[in-house]
Amino acid sequence: MTDSSRLRVGVIGYGYWGPNVVRNFYNGPGTTVGSVCDLSAGALERVQRNYPSIGVTQNPDDLITDPDIDVIAIVTPISGHFPLAKRALENGKHVFVEKPFTGSSSDAERLIELAERKRLQIMVDHTFLFTGAVRKIDELIHNDELGRLYYYDSTRINLGMFQHDANVVWDLATHDLAIIDHLLPGEPEAIVATGEGHVNGVEDMAFVTIYFADNVIAHLNVNWLSPVKIRMTLIGGERRMLVWDDLQADEKVKVYDKGIDTSRASDLRVNYRAGDMWAPRIEPVEALQLETQYFADCITNGKPAVNDGYAGLRVVRMLEAIDASISQKGRMVYCRPAMSASASRE
Amino acid sequence: MTDSSRLRVGVIGYGYWGPNVVRNFYNGPGTTVGSVCDLSAGALERVQRNYPSIGVTQNPDDLITDPDIDVIAIVTPISGHFPLAKRALENGKHVFVEKPFTGSSSDAERLIELAERKRLQIMVDHTFLFTGAVRKIDELIHNDELGRLYYYDSTRINLGMFQHDANVVWDLATHDLAIIDHLLPGEPEAIVATGEGHVNGVEDMAFVTIYFADNVIAHLNVNWLSPVKIRMTLIGGERRMLVWDDLQADEKVKVYDKGIDTSRASDLRVNYRAGDMWAPRIEPVEALQLETQYFADCITNGKPAVNDGYAGLRVVRMLEAIDASISQKGRMVYCRPAMSASASRE
Amino acid sequence: MTDSSRLRVGVIGYGYWGPNVVRNFYNGPGTTVGSVCDLSAGALERVQRNYPSIGVTQNPDDLITDPDIDVIAIVTPISGHFPLAKRALENGKHVFVEKPFTGSSSDAERLIELAERKRLQIMVDHTFLFTGAVRKIDELIHNDELGRLYYYDSTRINLGMFQHDANVVWDLATHDLAIIDHLLPGEPEAIVATGEGHVNGVEDMAFVTIYFADNVIAHLNVNWLSPVKIRMTLIGGERRMLVWDDLQADEKVKVYDKGIDTSRASDLRVNYRAGDMWAPRIEPVEALQLETQYFADCITNGKPAVNDGYAGLRVVRMLEAIDASISQKGRMVYCRPAMSASASRE
Amino acid sequence: MTDSSRLRVGVIGYGYWGPNVVRNFYNGPGTTVGSVCDLSAGALERVQRNYPSIGVTQNPDDLITDPDIDVIAIVTPISGHFPLAKRALENGKHVFVEKPFTGSSSDAERLIELAERKRLQIMVDHTFLFTGAVRKIDELIHNDELGRLYYYDSTRINLGMFQHDANVVWDLATHDLAIIDHLLPGEPEAIVATGEGHVNGVEDMAFVTIYFADNVIAHLNVNWLSPVKIRMTLIGGERRMLVWDDLQADEKVKVYDKGIDTSRASDLRVNYRAGDMWAPRIEPVEALQLETQYFADCITNGKPAVNDGYAGLRVVRMLEAIDASISQKGRMVYCRPAMSASASRE
Repeated sequence: MTDSSRLRVGVIGYGYWGPNVVRNFYNGPGTTVGSVCDLSAGALERVQRNYPSIGVTQNPDDLITDPDIDVIAIVTPISGHFPLAKRALENGKHVFVEKPFTGSSSDAERLIELAERKRLQIMVDHTFLFTGAVRKIDELIHNDELGRLYYYDSTRINLGMFQHDANVVWDLATHDLAIIDHLLPGEPEAIVATGEGHVNGVEDMAFVTIYFADNVIAHLNVNWLSPVKIRMTLIGGERRMLVWDDLQADEKVKVYDKGIDTSRASDLRVNYRAGDMWAPRIEPVEALQLETQYFADCITNGKPAVNDGYAGLRVVRMLEAIDASISQKGRMVYCRPAMSASASRE
Repeated sequence: MTDSSRLRVGVIGYGYWGPNVVRNFYNGPGTTVGSVCDLSAGALERVQRNYPSIGVTQNPDDLITDPDIDVIAIVTPISGHFPLAKRALENGKHVFVEKPFTGSSSDAERLIELAERKRLQIMVDHTFLFTGAVRKIDELIHNDELGRLYYYDSTRINLGMFQHDANVVWDLATHDLAIIDHLLPGEPEAIVATGEGHVNGVEDMAFVTIYFADNVIAHLNVNWLSPVKIRMTLIGGERRMLVWDDLQADEKVKVYDKGIDTSRASDLRVNYRAGDMWAPRIEPVEALQLETQYFADCITNGKPAVNDGYAGLRVVRMLEAIDASISQKGRMVYCRPAMSASASRE
Repeated sequence: MTDSSRLRVGVIGYGYWGPNVVRNFYNGPGTTVGSVCDLSAGALERVQRNYPSIGVTQNPDDLITDPDIDVIAIVTPISGHFPLAKRALENGKHVFVEKPFTGSSSDAERLIELAERKRLQIMVDHTFLFTGAVRKIDELIHNDELGRLYYYDSTRINLGMFQHDANVVWDLATHDLAIIDHLLPGEPEAIVATGEGHVNGVEDMAFVTIYFADNVIAHLNVNWLSPVKIRMTLIGGERRMLVWDDLQADEKVKVYDKGIDTSRASDLRVNYRAGDMWAPRIEPVEALQLETQYFADCITNGKPAVNDGYAGLRVVRMLEAIDASISQKGRMVYCRPAMSASASRE
Repeated sequence: MTDSSRLRVGVIGYGYWGPNVVRNFYNGPGTTVGSVCDLSAGALERVQRNYPSIGVTQNPDDLITDPDIDVIAIVTPISGHFPLAKRALENGKHVFVEKPFTGSSSDAERLIELAERKRLQIMVDHTFLFTGAVRKIDELIHNDELGRLYYYDSTRINLGMFQHDANVVWDLATHDLAIIDHLLPGEPEAIVATGEGHVNGVEDMAFVTIYFADNVIAHLNVNWLSPVKIRMTLIGGERRMLVWDDLQADEKVKVYDKGIDTSRASDLRVNYRAGDMWAPRIEPVEALQLETQYFADCITNGKPAVNDGYAGLRVVRMLEAIDASISQKGRMVYCRPAMSASASRE
């Protein structure tokens, strides 16, 4: 592939996650990085030391209006997502934006409309969808290995990075919401969430229940005040159940041939099945590498991404519903159906 | 101690837990077992083989009206607790009753009134209060090692024993409610609970949030459909945090000198503290042995137990509030203050 | 089965392990316990309280000469094994004896000869052979799931019970030697062992290498001075490898479809294979129950046990070789071939 | 510090570990990297992309004879260590060399003599000495927290990288030997080692016992054919014992206030002590960063390093003794005392 055929990406934000985004777009076969923008001179110095061929600037407009740039990647705090994405789309750039997509669903809707009008693509960086573990779980579910789904139950806790413009839900639960949006059939019907803030007013722990059709239920436990780090998700199905422990180096996903025997549930006697456990090999790939090249592929071939603006919008709507429920101490909030068709599974 | 000075216990129910109750009352220095009642002839045969000196019967009235029996221990399904305890109290017997105390708070209140009128004692078998782990945590909290409490968060899941007369909340959450009632200061203010049943109509998983004063929050995750068994509780405080993993053979309780530095939280910058971890030695005692002898001591010295009828009532009220909240999809249910003074900490 | 058709067992020794032996012989369909002997009056009192129908005595000869006793079970310290077993065999009793069989191989040989002459059976209590885990591993090896065997490597350490008449090798390594004798093909060729004693002169830690034909090697790490308890065995084969962690409640045996690709090893480039992991369900049976009933079956049907006197002798010979090697700081000790044919696999 | 005052390092070898050595010397306050040599053009391209200011060459002599280079870092396979270090020292360069120091002790001795004659420094990259875990253990031992030492027992196994010019001992045991050399008092007296090769002739697993004075014993279990990765070391002392699990993200070192009570060991009754466990906070530093700056400091201030040529020689002598013992199936090999005084503790 000649250089001219690669998509040129301008990256805004070179803080914690930005270097990974730059590295992957820089090394990808279908992409390269044209310039990087950050307000911090120190950050730009690090860019120059590591990538002497990449231009640097403190002014995002330099990238957004650069005719040699095809894609703007926005790796800033949430408050920057909407204005930067809007200007990028207006200037004819495709947009890769950190999760969560925007600070409000109306902002997300405006960006989706703008992108469609300009025939541009939006990808929201729901990185977890591209991990070996989630791709394996997706495969198991869609091969019906688990049978009818019962529940998704995630614990995502650690001593956390308190943030200025987000509570623990927008920080941690976003991951699970993107995964749930991707894995579970149907859309959420209603949300009940509780939480508490102990330090500076924003919630540092929250507990979220999401009701789906057919008695499927999801639950999230997110916490910035845990002394230990846990990343564990259980997914229960009628046929099999699995445990995904993302902190394990190996054996991240364990599938249990175990459950209840519902064949004779009518007589109120429930029987148990115990069988083997099986840990499928998980492909050791870097999720962000897969994702950035998938974006190049989506743009080049004009096909929508599974993690497009609609996916981003659906996640933001769930975040808003969670905030609304927490502020009313667990009042059930109904979820609006998503705006329109999208690449997500139904 | 001569035999005549030991309290004679009649045990009703010799199923899963009954043999432990019989063994501990039988071997205790302050108690012995006079007779055992069970409907199953096989169960009674097992009693006779193991304890030839203990009388057996299929009729609970034989024990309840036996003038040589001082205490009736009720180790039956919940539906039997109220009628058997009522008759036992009416016949002048002290009562040791399985958790949860009763199937309704009004039944619990009636038993408490009856016991007070008859000057008899009730002990509800909140066994966990007598484990080395809970006693150590109690000591840590009351020595102010954790500082101001932030939260209690428990996960109690396994492939469960579906029951006829109880959902997963009455089966599993009862343990946590008894522990919370014992450890946390103040009474619960409101409860939000969600859940779902997938098999035979009763909830097989539930998620419970309990609000206390001063931003203290408790959360329980109970599940009969988990492929793995987890018994893990996190307790967060301003000064230290702890993790209690009850399935560990050693190091059940780990205390982390770790948290956030709130001294300068006013300027919105939150700092982290990382320090040593410490696993205090846990005394390897059998909780039920301690509990049964404590009951003998309470009766002999006329002092109320921490796990008396009032504690049982408080737990049943929380169970009722959880059921009410689940059936209304997470509607917040306010908790009534407990009936009257009791031995629990305030 | 009528009572008269059950083998009557006399058990000598009611200390730590004796109660388990009594319970299993007592409850077994093919056996019952006639009397129990122990020097301690307190132990005999415990027998009487739990089994009023069983006779008790402080004199082993009462059992050994009792015409109603068919089998003598010897659950004493090692020094008692030979004299008690000898007298039992002389009196026409079958013998069930704790591991290790005897304190010396010559004693073991004399007992085997005596038993053969009297047409009586000896079973050495190599309990681990009857666990679900070892039976599953045996099945995997004999179904050639692991391929050609490379090694057996066991770590068996804890803060130990110092004993008067045995070092850590005779206490802990005996388990592994019995398992190795059962699982590995062929007989050991040579042993190299090192060790050290830190407290009272006897070895409290030891490291044992056992050479087999065809480059198969076994290694044992036994230690009474470890702050943590570990019971972990790795078995490596050309096709698959397994890890047996006996302290896991579930998933005791994990089989890894992982190894090196030797197909092109000739060119000095070794490639790796990584595949799934698989934890077969382990039957939750009590090993000692299976073993005691197997003994009844062997006696009734006149067939030799896999854990007969020859197996016990082979283990004692390895123990002697280990002691000899340790005392000469790791000098290699060749193993003599076993005395004669036996039920063990070759 | 001005650029001119920084030591200029020439790095030979940019394969697996080389990039870490370059990065740390490059970023260090007291060092920078002048040029990098590697035979592979692809490796040199990666250097240029990441560090445009660093010169590259395929000829090591370009670095070794460069008057602007102060230090040669040798990050090649073992066979290159001696000839490259020799030429570097002859050309007046200090030498930083990968572990193990050399392929033979005579080579190591020649390099030490040469360096002393030229008044140059050698540092052998015993990286583990600079990890937070080993530095904490060192501190615990030297503060006498463990009391009189009993043993060091390490398991270092994984599905390994078969190498052309080394067996598993030279690959994996080198780490433990360097740590033992650093932590344990006194020098090893004798070594007994066994091992086996299953694939291409070189040992892929080995078991090493090292005898020290005063009944102190060390044991290493290294294995390239393990399906699981384990990095666990136990260190037992009379007062306390510790477990170092290097694969734990947190709580790498656990100290147990647990052991035996030897106060009355004379009467053959050994008692146990059980107490708290304590996991000291481990400083999260990059070991290689600390080490490279320590080397700059040693050179600048003319003080010998703890991991100087003598330390490297002592480790190579142990490696030779292990090989000799393995090839004679565990024959004990006495260790020669080290050549002369050095910075290691005695």
